[in-house]
Amino acid sequence: MTDVARAAGVSSATVSYVLSGKRPVADETRQAVEEAVRRLGFTLNPVARSLRTGRSTFVALIVPDIANPFYAHLAGALQDQLRAHGYHVVVSNTAARRETEEDLLREVVGQRFAGVVMTPFRLDRDAFKDLRRAGVPAVVSADVEFSDVDLVMPDSTAAVQRALALLAASGRRRVGVIAGPEDATGGDPRLERIKDAAAAAGLSIPKDLVVPGEHTRRAGVLGFERLMAARLRPDAVMCVNDVTAVGVMDGAEQAGVEIPADIAVIGHDDIDFASLVRPRLTTISYPARQVGRSAARLLLQQMDGRASCRVERVVADLVVRSST
Amino acid sequence: MTDVARAAGVSSATVSYVLSGKRPVADETRQAVEEAVRRLGFTLNPVARSLRTGRSTFVALIVPDIANPFYAHLAGALQDQLRAHGYHVVVSNTAARRETEEDLLREVVGQRFAGVVMTPFRLDRDAFKDLRRAGVPAVVSADVEFSDVDLVMPDSTAAVQRALALLAASGRRRVGVIAGPEDATGGDPRLERIKDAAAAAGLSIPKDLVVPGEHTRRAGVLGFERLMAARLRPDAVMCVNDVTAVGVMDGAEQAGVEIPADIAVIGHDDIDFASLVRPRLTTISYPARQVGRSAARLLLQQMDGRASCRVERVVADLVVRSST
Repeated sequence: MTDVARAAGVSSATVSYVLSGKRPVADETRQAVEEAVRRLGFTLNPVARSLRTGRSTFVALIVPDIANPFYAHLAGALQDQLRAHGYHVVVSNTAARRETEEDLLREVVGQRFAGVVMTPFRLDRDAFKDLRRAGVPAVVSADVEFSDVDLVMPDSTAAVQRALALLAASGRRRVGVIAGPEDATGGDPRLERIKDAAAAAGLSIPKDLVVPGEHTRRAGVLGFERLMAARLRPDAVMCVNDVTAVGVMDGAEQAGVEIPADIAVIGHDDIDFASLVRPRLTTISYPARQVGRSAARLLLQQMDGRASCRVERVVADLVVRSST
Repeated sequence: MTDVARAAGVSSATVSYVLSGKRPVADETRQAVEEAVRRLGFTLNPVARSLRTGRSTFVALIVPDIANPFYAHLAGALQDQLRAHGYHVVVSNTAARRETEEDLLREVVGQRFAGVVMTPFRLDRDAFKDLRRAGVPAVVSADVEFSDVDLVMPDSTAAVQRALALLAASGRRRVGVIAGPEDATGGDPRLERIKDAAAAAGLSIPKDLVVPGEHTRRAGVLGFERLMAARLRPDAVMCVNDVTAVGVMDGAEQAGVEIPADIAVIGHDDIDFASLVRPRLTTISYPARQVGRSAARLLLQQMDGRASCRVERVVADLVVRSST
């Protein structure tokens, strides 16, 4: 520990705070300590901890769509933070199926994982009770609240308001939405925020222009087809994530509809490829790596016996590119 | 089992073959059986197996870059095949670091995973010996051979030959390569195949136009900068994967170099986004889902006590788009 403190140019107490998560430490200081830890190959001994707690060194990240690059970045940041503490992150895909979500949570308890970070899709809000009873630290990254866990939640209200104001300012009038599925836990908060912001910007979202989807590229293609079959077509589409927006682009290309001339498209997340597709995608940027870091911090604090059921907000932003 | 057979319209013996992997079954039949298995919620009891073998229900997929969409598809296909047998796939990222690769293999043994599928990057060729000794079924998906495991290997010789012939036919003369790192296990077979095919096509690959990289988008950006600084610039670039090729596109855009007018670009893998970037990427298509299915079959056969150390070839193809 003294070596780490010397290498990082901080006090031993600070090193201890960073490793234990017992007190907040400035980002720069934390990074210097983590860098020194990595350089020196120093780790809190996870095997000793594992023997004491009977838990494995694995932390499970459970996600609805492993092919969505958003989660690769979340996983990367989570791993970067947890590695210094001797934990390995493993990612598991639920394909947004409730049964798989329940199965995986059960297995995580049964196999004594060190912790779990999850983006639930169709789980009950109290699905984490058993986990808590079994003493498994858990953090949820989601748009809706779940009981008995720490939460990392996006704060995208302002960004969505700016997005709808942008559409109004560029003369769009009728907005379609490729939303989430109707049976997702807690409804569809992204859709609600879009509706509120549209009303504030004086834009209409007719009922037949709200199409449910599974947050997948395929859902974007199918959703676009339904929008084009509407009595009055939209001149803008908001999508609940970028993968869906990419599907909308596929659909538009097949149908010979020009983006943004005929229709504007806005996504959510800002995955890497949002800036690579043509036209480049305007999107609500939601910082995956920051979500991963927050989840890691909350998880480490729980492992350390700190209180749970906190909510941490991560602010989203609007990134304007050429699809609007 | 009888119910499954009736639902799938096949004999009980066929169901047994599909579930056990004991005999080859036509793809359509296998799909019908798996579909029936899913619909009926029937599973070979993994808990019973777990009690017998002392192993968990988790199969680890260990990959060098979790952000590369190739692995998301491999994981998806692996999961689809293994779910019917009661196994869950978890994906873990090594970031191509040898130390992390070794760590993860050790943990997989220690935590009694049911099996492991891995794309090693810097591991020793005999790194799987301990796994075998511990009785953990293992399959490697790689371009080079490793001892003591089943292998799923690409057969891309013909596709790479067609790629280089295409470059020659379109008047390209000097080919640059953004290759893998120099210290990767077994060297860089993709580079060797590119060199052989270039010679056969009458194209030159000068030494200073072979740039090592880490198979990442960043490696593509840096590699492109180095190629542009060469005494004689290349008029074509072959990249060891699509993620690297996307980095080359980033670099070309920053430098104001036109693709394909000034320089042709070819990748490897054919990830989803290869057809979404502009220009659309010409690439050596390597079927990720087929790799996942092959790996699942080999793994299930090992779990069933069948012989190991087999090699299964998956044929790659050239997909011509607008970057050449």
